[in-house]
Amino acid sequence: MALIDRDTLDFLLYDVLDAQALTQLAPYHDHSRETFSQTLDTATRVAETWFLPHNGKADEHEPQFDGDTVTTLAEVKDAFRHFVDAGLLTARLPFEQDGMQLPSLINGACISQFTAANPSSAAYPFLTMAAANLIDHFASDALKQTWLPLMRSGQATGTMVLTEPDVGSSLGDLTTSATPADDGSYRIRGQKMYISGGDHDLTDNIVHLVLARIKGAPAGTRGISLFLVPKWHVDDSGAPSTRNDVALAGLLHKMGYRGTTSTVLTFGEQDQCVGYLIGEAHQGLKYMFMMMNEARVGVGLGAASIACRGYAESLAYARERPQGRLPSCKDASSKPVMIIEHADVRRMLLAQKAYAEGALMLCLYGNRLIDLAEHSDGDEQRNAQQLLDLLTPVIKSWPSEFGLKANELAIQVLGGAGYIREYPVEQCYRDQRLNPIHEGTHGIQGLDLLGRKLWQDNSRGLMALDAAVRATIRTAGEHEELQVMAATLESEWNKASALIQTLGKALAAGDPDRTLANASVFLTWMGHLVVAWQWLWQAQAALASDQPDTFCQGKLQACRYFFRWELPQCNHWHDLLASQDDTCYAMPINAF
Amino acid sequence: MALIDRDTLDFLLYDVLDAQALTQLAPYHDHSRETFSQTLDTATRVAETWFLPHNGKADEHEPQFDGDTVTTLAEVKDAFRHFVDAGLLTARLPFEQDGMQLPSLINGACISQFTAANPSSAAYPFLTMAAANLIDHFASDALKQTWLPLMRSGQATGTMVLTEPDVGSSLGDLTTSATPADDGSYRIRGQKMYISGGDHDLTDNIVHLVLARIKGAPAGTRGISLFLVPKWHVDDSGAPSTRNDVALAGLLHKMGYRGTTSTVLTFGEQDQCVGYLIGEAHQGLKYMFMMMNEARVGVGLGAASIACRGYAESLAYARERPQGRLPSCKDASSKPVMIIEHADVRRMLLAQKAYAEGALMLCLYGNRLIDLAEHSDGDEQRNAQQLLDLLTPVIKSWPSEFGLKANELAIQVLGGAGYIREYPVEQCYRDQRLNPIHEGTHGIQGLDLLGRKLWQDNSRGLMALDAAVRATIRTAGEHEELQVMAATLESEWNKASALIQTLGKALAAGDPDRTLANASVFLTWMGHLVVAWQWLWQAQAALASDQPDTFCQGKLQACRYFFRWELPQCNHWHDLLASQDDTCYAMPINAF
Repeated sequence: MALIDRDTLDFLLYDVLDAQALTQLAPYHDHSRETFSQTLDTATRVAETWFLPHNGKADEHEPQFDGDTVTTLAEVKDAFRHFVDAGLLTARLPFEQDGMQLPSLINGACISQFTAANPSSAAYPFLTMAAANLIDHFASDALKQTWLPLMRSGQATGTMVLTEPDVGSSLGDLTTSATPADDGSYRIRGQKMYISGGDHDLTDNIVHLVLARIKGAPAGTRGISLFLVPKWHVDDSGAPSTRNDVALAGLLHKMGYRGTTSTVLTFGEQDQCVGYLIGEAHQGLKYMFMMMNEARVGVGLGAASIACRGYAESLAYARERPQGRLPSCKDASSKPVMIIEHADVRRMLLAQKAYAEGALMLCLYGNRLIDLAEHSDGDEQRNAQQLLDLLTPVIKSWPSEFGLKANELAIQVLGGAGYIREYPVEQCYRDQRLNPIHEGTHGIQGLDLLGRKLWQDNSRGLMALDAAVRATIRTAGEHEELQVMAATLESEWNKASALIQTLGKALAAGDPDRTLANASVFLTWMGHLVVAWQWLWQAQAALASDQPDTFCQGKLQACRYFFRWELPQCNHWHDLLASQDDTCYAMPINAF
Repeated sequence: MALIDRDTLDFLLYDVLDAQALTQLAPYHDHSRETFSQTLDTATRVAETWFLPHNGKADEHEPQFDGDTVTTLAEVKDAFRHFVDAGLLTARLPFEQDGMQLPSLINGACISQFTAANPSSAAYPFLTMAAANLIDHFASDALKQTWLPLMRSGQATGTMVLTEPDVGSSLGDLTTSATPADDGSYRIRGQKMYISGGDHDLTDNIVHLVLARIKGAPAGTRGISLFLVPKWHVDDSGAPSTRNDVALAGLLHKMGYRGTTSTVLTFGEQDQCVGYLIGEAHQGLKYMFMMMNEARVGVGLGAASIACRGYAESLAYARERPQGRLPSCKDASSKPVMIIEHADVRRMLLAQKAYAEGALMLCLYGNRLIDLAEHSDGDEQRNAQQLLDLLTPVIKSWPSEFGLKANELAIQVLGGAGYIREYPVEQCYRDQRLNPIHEGTHGIQGLDLLGRKLWQDNSRGLMALDAAVRATIRTAGEHEELQVMAATLESEWNKASALIQTLGKALAAGDPDRTLANASVFLTWMGHLVVAWQWLWQAQAALASDQPDTFCQGKLQACRYFFRWELPQCNHWHDLLASQDDTCYAMPINAF
């Protein structure tokens, strides 16, 4: 219990997203539904056994810093070790690098179980995978030979070091400096903040990937380079030898995700902080963003997973907690019903199901696009890449926004019990609250979508999305149960296409501040349309599947919920966007 | 800073709600705007000096229970003492009882400053006031003479003891028993849970007001009686003498409101728990609910206050935090702007202003209704009581629901800073999260409104509301700036009146389970209509006031925001209600 229901995952993987078709891509020829399932079995077992049990404990007992060393719970170290030992840290690597050569889609399903079980302990291996991939893509052979074996074997973790005390969303302003040294390395100097996993005692070493500006580089985003900065220098065997000049200035204390350290790091206080340039100078942000885009899909997936966890917990509670009677029952001595019998509790559960499983579908779809973008060819490959680029802000944001709503409802289902830490749902909310903030806030994602992604490559991503949505409308319309919803989506989608044209013209006409003012609304609106499309897809797949009747009924009803209760909100958002409403934009600052 | 802006309070008190008119009511003849203002000055100073500074500390350092004694921070005790010493615990009592004879409206304004400053420390005096008032209304002279002096002087605090481990929303099922003893008292036996302030070390004694069932009483809500159960028996001087048989079984650990103990209490483990019947047998729930209704207005006011606090904190941050540039600025070397310049940040601030100040208005309006219901006469008195009865579920729920959204936005404005406990807004959210749960959940309030309050007294409350809304529509329509909004509200209100008729007929026709299934949506919809009405009222008052131009501009723009961004959502809710949508109601339980 508590992890994501396996039927739900299998349905999405096989009945909806046709994971088996991925075995036709060259790197996945040796795979089959059986190997996929075995891997997911393993991941689920490791998540249940080594991550789930200490989720609450790691929240209650945050990492401690005594001025010298950070101490985490022994359970967090054990969890990390078992993740590594199960081969999950290298699951996506080729066989010849001792990996499992696993598709992103299946890897995503595995990862969802870890975030559902324990998001803060899962963050350490996830960060390490991301950092190692970045090094693998862009660093020199020498750097790779030194650092990758340590990271792949779990002897060092990785971090992504972007934010500074004065620089968050606006990375172009960062001031951490890099000065070339005689030996070809650099001396890094600056302070960084909100660095997840920036210090801890899980491993002997930590490999920081640090954005900094080489002295004399241009201002803004075009002058940023990426450096590998180890916590410890290593000897030829890879063992830590001397400390690099990276110091932990302090731990930050988060609302949730408490088991993951969030750090303030000082680089080069003694002018001795050695950093190694990754790739070319001034290309750092580009490298970081190739990684960041996958990280954003990862944030969405994490948000979906925590939403699923909250849904599962509140559903289990609602099935077992007796309280009250239906309004029609006037017999005070009759037996109380389980609260799932109350219509309002069913509303809160059905909304959670629609949000959580809609979000999970969206993110796994994103992972499948990654597979196609990496390994298919021709139009299919290009389509997948363009769709992925377009949808990344939606995949990051929609699960974060509606996952949060789902977790808020999970608390409400439990009532007083939901409000106390003796039950797990309030932690779900607190963990989830990070997701609309990190890896680009909601507002930043909105600007990215409306200001950039829609128009990129002559809007080919949008055309690919249009084709995909209309294909589902067409095929779903053939099922009697889905005809009305298919027609509704078609009408909404036509309105959307027209509005996007209008906004494109407004942007081209050139008052970006005004046209982009409601970009966050645009992001939410677009997300709702995309998720409505995918719910129709899920419903259609359910009708075609041989899943049990109750399972299919649940999928159909969640789809109906989305179309009847959620999609109509798009009218209002559409009208705000179509009128380019300036109520917020025009609010005078001194009138607040 | 951080407390509710005084201009905001004064505007609501004097420009909108005409607090001065209350001085025409007999008990308030000796008051004036000056005495009101002095009291509010005192309250604000005590809140700022003695409550605000330890708000974060009391959250971080929860009360501790060593198995024998509960220990709270010294600051919490000091705060309680200063609240008492300032005369605020007895502010509403008559002059002859050493009170200030203060109207509920002004008392509400004072109270809002304490909740904005520190909700968990404020809970102890608030609970004590409520419990003392209940004793004052319903208990025998003997009980009053013994216990009221102790409570009024802050030597004993009070509690409201309703919930049991198996009985929350459905109080009719409670099993705590009361057995008559020879001396006219009762022996209480049972376990109670989620009792706020159920044990602590602030005062020598605690007076519990306990719902229990006298042996042989009818099942359900009609067999419940109310008992006064002291923690300590007292001697003739009121000093604690021997312990009553009430034991703290344990503390619960909440998501927020952590400075207020939440307890599990065991009554009569040794069969020696003495309780004194308050008023008549079997009337306990009625008594408790007369108090509960004021408590519900208090919950709304607390929710509004925490929303105001989050708004103030995020506004201050947005004015001072430089980050990024407007989309139109392409010069990477230009100076970053303050984040309040970003349209999306302005959206999040304006939404907070609309929610927080709309909620505050609603709750102060509720407090003014309490004054009129208590002290005016004839139609005015009856109207006020009926309006208050009707609107109590809205006053409790709307601020709780939208205050929570406001606090979520406050976190988002601060971004990463909003997510760490080094800044106060994440605590605001955690404190606020209780409000949609306690004193009747959102779902319970919806059933109360749609199933009962609308139809009570031949819908006279609804008629009074209709008259009040239409009066504002009429007068606001005379201002050119407000004409469109007045017309919009009129059209929405006409639709609402028709829908309420329809639902009334459906209820009378008799499928309450189905008709009440979407009662929560009804509650939110009704709340939005009421708050739209009151924003129009605020805008009209701003135009007529001599407040500074920027202040009035802010009020007008917040009103426009509510009409353009919030009110249109009513269409969707209306349609769900009008169609008696059964998507959630019809979801089969085994299909989740």
